[in-house]
Amino acid sequence: MLTLFYAPRTCALASHIALEEAGADYRLKRLDFSKTEQQSAEYLALNPKGRVPALSSERGVLTETPAILAFVAQTHPQARLAPLDDAFAFAEIQAFNSYLCSTVHVAHAHKVRGSRWADDEAALEAMRRKVPQSVGACFDLVERQMLRGPWVMGDTYTIADPYLFTIAQWIEGDGVDPARLPRVMDHRKRMLERPAVAKAVAHETAG
Amino acid sequence: MLTLFYAPRTCALASHIALEEAGADYRLKRLDFSKTEQQSAEYLALNPKGRVPALSSERGVLTETPAILAFVAQTHPQARLAPLDDAFAFAEIQAFNSYLCSTVHVAHAHKVRGSRWADDEAALEAMRRKVPQSVGACFDLVERQMLRGPWVMGDTYTIADPYLFTIAQWIEGDGVDPARLPRVMDHRKRMLERPAVAKAVAHETAG
Repeated sequence: MLTLFYAPRTCALASHIALEEAGADYRLKRLDFSKTEQQSAEYLALNPKGRVPALSSERGVLTETPAILAFVAQTHPQARLAPLDDAFAFAEIQAFNSYLCSTVHVAHAHKVRGSRWADDEAALEAMRRKVPQSVGACFDLVERQMLRGPWVMGDTYTIADPYLFTIAQWIEGDGVDPARLPRVMDHRKRMLERPAVAKAVAHETAG
Repeated sequence: MLTLFYAPRTCALASHIALEEAGADYRLKRLDFSKTEQQSAEYLALNPKGRVPALSSERGVLTETPAILAFVAQTHPQARLAPLDDAFAFAEIQAFNSYLCSTVHVAHAHKVRGSRWADDEAALEAMRRKVPQSVGACFDLVERQMLRGPWVMGDTYTIADPYLFTIAQWIEGDGVDPARLPRVMDHRKRMLERPAVAKAVAHETAG
């Protein structure tokens, strides 16, 4: 049995959707960030990074969204969430997901997590000011060069799709005008039409 | 034939080492960052991100270190650079490499690439000031919790090793005292004893 440790409105939604799409046998464990449960001794013993997502299994605990997504795809081959017999196509998905975690999510994080990289309030404010520009530039690249359509990798739905969908939830909040991202917004809309996505989103919203 | 686009003293060294360890048929194409060649029209046509590494093949271009490393391992199974038939063990490597790219490298990047996330000089200076602390905290976690020893994943050398070695090149320059990281420094030293590593490093140093 897999257990996904998550919090609403975080990137853990991508792993939640992938587990649902895969038909995985899993349960959810919600962490309350308002009570800083991700920094509790109990959780740090499980995931010393003190962040979400974390996926526990009988083999141990996995962290980092790209790793969890690839693991779900590889252990549920019948769900066809990644081209498991084509190393180049698999690497293209990994490259897309790696860009989301190391560049897009990082740009976004400068809005409310700037204290990871600077201490004084003026610097944090300077970071917040640039988020619309830095996140916008990332999504311009996704819109023009990376999102093939209708799904990220083209005709076939993969583990790149729930991750893009998840990060794209933050576009408006990051001060990026969605009107300049018609293909990303179309992707976001079509994702919500998938039962697995709707179920995961509804679960998070239900609180 | 694979071509690795790289620049010295960047994270592209990890992919260079992995190609060498794999016995891959590859060539190197150096970009001169002092001439901003990574932003040239020719290179942007190949890699719109304008960064390194990029690995071109007859199938197309791959970017992002974790994706390139996994691709090299999967396409050169005889080199045994990753546990290709064990999804959980493979995911552990992906999780380690994802942490390096999305957290450790990002913390380091606030020293000289702060303009990605803020514009005014006082904010850039505030970011630079925190690098010893933020990079140090990352390496403390690697030292205490993640590096199993003697190699990252334990007894077996994998694609996590060249990536850790590469990022660990920056420890002193980031103002982190190597004396607090004996296991990481031991790993760095033993890596240099591997012929593939020594060859890749010598090639970069030769200019």
